[in-house]
Amino acid sequence: MFGMRTRIALEEKKVEYEYREEDLLNKKSSLLLEMNPIHKKIPVLIHNGKPICESLNQVEYIDETWPDKNRNSLLPSDPYKRSQAKFWGDFIDKKVNVAGRRIWATKGEEEEACKELIEILKTLELELGDKIYFGGETFGYVDIALIGFYSWFGVYEKYGNVSIETECPKLIAWAKRCLQRESVAKALPEPEKVTSFISERRAKLGFE
Amino acid sequence: MFGMRTRIALEEKKVEYEYREEDLLNKKSSLLLEMNPIHKKIPVLIHNGKPICESLNQVEYIDETWPDKNRNSLLPSDPYKRSQAKFWGDFIDKKVNVAGRRIWATKGEEEEACKELIEILKTLELELGDKIYFGGETFGYVDIALIGFYSWFGVYEKYGNVSIETECPKLIAWAKRCLQRESVAKALPEPEKVTSFISERRAKLGFE
Repeated sequence: MFGMRTRIALEEKKVEYEYREEDLLNKKSSLLLEMNPIHKKIPVLIHNGKPICESLNQVEYIDETWPDKNRNSLLPSDPYKRSQAKFWGDFIDKKVNVAGRRIWATKGEEEEACKELIEILKTLELELGDKIYFGGETFGYVDIALIGFYSWFGVYEKYGNVSIETECPKLIAWAKRCLQRESVAKALPEPEKVTSFISERRAKLGFE
Repeated sequence: MFGMRTRIALEEKKVEYEYREEDLLNKKSSLLLEMNPIHKKIPVLIHNGKPICESLNQVEYIDETWPDKNRNSLLPSDPYKRSQAKFWGDFIDKKVNVAGRRIWATKGEEEEACKELIEILKTLELELGDKIYFGGETFGYVDIALIGFYSWFGVYEKYGNVSIETECPKLIAWAKRCLQRESVAKALPEPEKVTSFISERRAKLGFE
């Protein structure tokens, strides 16, 4: 869900790029180790031979490096609105991923972790309110930060035994609006692929 | 070490502000709960009645809201250099605080946690290199992100049984340069106060 952010931002800005996958479960490439020696994690954005690490940092870099007068920026120009967008990006990074992972990467804590995730998603839904996107009329930074998790909702629902659409209908309607954008539709994997990948992982971990 | 960042940024920008402390060990104020309902944490910067949360977010907001043509910005204007500054700010937030806290808030793990912290500080020292400040000639974002931890170095040395100056001499020289700035000298508490506060906390936790 982190690499998707970078791809969506590049697509939104109509920046051509070459996409390379990493086989993280086996051997990390020498390029990854050279370009992100500190964290050794994906995604890494390489521009003019220089690396930019951390996905939300990349989204901001893309927004600043390829401004387009004919299109909206991913981040608002007003400092207060920028600070709010970054606050929510940080909230998503700190909360959604941790609770989401606990649902499928533990045994016996699934439903409890899912209750926690639903509270987090409800907080986000409250922030969204009746707006089209998190920033208002235009798709941007917070939408990009969150939408990648949508392809994992099937996993959360399966192991957490919950319907996210029942709990957070406005958030699901927002996700469906985002998916109508070519940038999002191209970057997000099919939910079934994620579900079957996690099912295999859990079987290997002895959870199924 | 987080609230200090905001105060240093405000002082650097010569912004007048009113400073209020919170008694976090007892009862959080209604103002804090109202202004940061999501995390209920300090520091909160309130400007024009609206809250900005998360300390590095505040530093960036201050930099953007009070630009000063006669002084350097806290963040560079070049998008690549900005992305690098933010990468290191994020690294400090994710790594230094966690390892530092493990040194004094655990019993029996102190020296192991301190070894981890020294590796983290050496990574930062390598990034600093022979520069005056992290950003080069001018004091800025990464310096502000890290310098607050300097007042905790005495705590880390005491419980981790190490001399940080022996391990990271360039980093200590950098910290002393920072302390020559009025903004930093005003914001940082005396190291002895931090050491005796932590000694009391450890005694209460039954660690001493």
